Amino acid sequence: MQTLKTIRITRQMMALTREQGKTIGFVPTMGALHEGHLSLIRAARKDCDTVVVSIFVNPTQFSANEDFSKYPRDLEKDRLLLEREGVDYLFCPEAAEVYPMTDMVKLCAPQALSSVMCGKFRLGHFDGVLQVCAKLFNIITPNKVYFGQKDYQQAVIVKRLISDLDFGIEMKICPTVREVDGLAMSSRNVYLKGEDRVKALFLSKVLFKIKDAFKKGERDVEKIKKQGRNEESEENEENEEGGEGVEVQYFDIRSADDLSEMSFIDKKAVCALAVTVGDVRLIDNVILDPNELS
Amino acid sequence: MQTLKTIRITRQMMALTREQGKTIGFVPTMGALHEGHLSLIRAARKDCDTVVVSIFVNPTQFSANEDFSKYPRDLEKDRLLLEREGVDYLFCPEAAEVYPMTDMVKLCAPQALSSVMCGKFRLGHFDGVLQVCAKLFNIITPNKVYFGQKDYQQAVIVKRLISDLDFGIEMKICPTVREVDGLAMSSRNVYLKGEDRVKALFLSKVLFKIKDAFKKGERDVEKIKKQGRNEESEENEENEEGGEGVEVQYFDIRSADDLSEMSFIDKKAVCALAVTVGDVRLIDNVILDPNELS
Repeated sequence: MQTLKTIRITRQMMALTREQGKTIGFVPTMGALHEGHLSLIRAARKDCDTVVVSIFVNPTQFSANEDFSKYPRDLEKDRLLLEREGVDYLFCPEAAEVYPMTDMVKLCAPQALSSVMCGKFRLGHFDGVLQVCAKLFNIITPNKVYFGQKDYQQAVIVKRLISDLDFGIEMKICPTVREVDGLAMSSRNVYLKGEDRVKALFLSKVLFKIKDAFKKGERDVEKIKKQGRNEESEENEENEEGGEGVEVQYFDIRSADDLSEMSFIDKKAVCALAVTVGDVRLIDNVILDPNELS
Repeated sequence: MQTLKTIRITRQMMALTREQGKTIGFVPTMGALHEGHLSLIRAARKDCDTVVVSIFVNPTQFSANEDFSKYPRDLEKDRLLLEREGVDYLFCPEAAEVYPMTDMVKLCAPQALSSVMCGKFRLGHFDGVLQVCAKLFNIITPNKVYFGQKDYQQAVIVKRLISDLDFGIEMKICPTVREVDGLAMSSRNVYLKGEDRVKALFLSKVLFKIKDAFKKGERDVEKIKKQGRNEESEENEENEEGGEGVEVQYFDIRSADDLSEMSFIDKKAVCALAVTVGDVRLIDNVILDPNELS
């Protein structure tokens, strides 16, 4: 695996790759790699001749009160994992290489997609995601890019970046990878200490109940949400919104395509949940697809 | 010349062109072609294996009170001109092909570049320019793009689009082409009827005087601007800002690189002027470069 730090050299290597007629699969990450990332890399490895992974903790997608500075970073460990997966190129630039100035061209996510769910609580977050994705896509010029279903809203918005700005890129959304007890893998899980790790199971428990109710035929959004909430509050009488020490930020069932509201699930939907456990913010989701053979 | 109307087919033709190892030169236009456009096309023809011209009157760069609907359009005449210049591909999509939805990913030009000069009078204009350029660049995937110096601020901002979002594209800015009497060529010149066509010479007259004063060694911005203004108001006593029936929107000398203000011309500068003649808005500029051998 070749490690690339500069845009200039990366561009040269990608041009060479394309000249050789090789397809490029790209997995953008912020490092602190876990099995979720590795599943994306394996999908890329299967599909494409050349696999490029970026590790870049993108400052423009964090707001001032968020965890940019303490976001987990372990480049040496990440590098070993990538070597083991047969990744061809690691692009891990410094922030100053990616953002040489402050007053740069920005991107704005479509209002309807970015003003709901996480967008309500993370102002400007998706604009920052689009900015770094546009840059990375132009540097890497991939044929295919791989995103995780866990960050579902991000995947939908990046997909819109690709179609709205006519990037000739195919996007693959890969299933969420979970710990054995159900917790969705996330780099931020390392923040969960002691009891908080147990409390964090709130997300997957609620979502699995929702998925069960859906599988049993429930299609009414309010009723299905109530089932997720009710069963949870039986366990935690003192707080019907979350478990004890679990604060729900949002709990939404929306169209999987455009994140619009729905009252009846007659097309593919996403049930997405965001909570804080202590001061750790966690998200998770399940897809509810009436056309899916189960 | 092949005329392309859809993004899908254009993408295929461009992929084929690149696979053949050919370089692509791209000239984006809004049609109503004149010698200014043709000079860009000739530059592209000279530099590149394949020349692509787009004709698209981009709705997102016009605000509600502007001339989008009456902007001159003559596709048949334009097509003949392009044939004669040996252009390989004309991309002329319908608006619905480029903007299938209203709530799409947008771009925001850097504040310092878009809040001055034309940006002060055309809110959102450069954001619309960047949006369509990003799309066109992704569809055409050119090696080089050609812009006219006449729209100097546009050229600077698109150059920043290319560097800020890491498009691997080289930009060439070609000199303004003028009518024999000095008027900068513009598709909007067809709006100038009768006396207004004469009054429009105000721009080039002022700018040529500025250029003369600069060539004679004047480097003080206020003094040099005064020379342009004074000599003009001798001719038109009644209005020291413009000629009769000529209203000056802005008259600026700024850094040619980043459009920042300057009081002394110790590096390459642009002197830019925007006026309205009747209800026709016209712009023009000259470069003042202390390092230029004259």
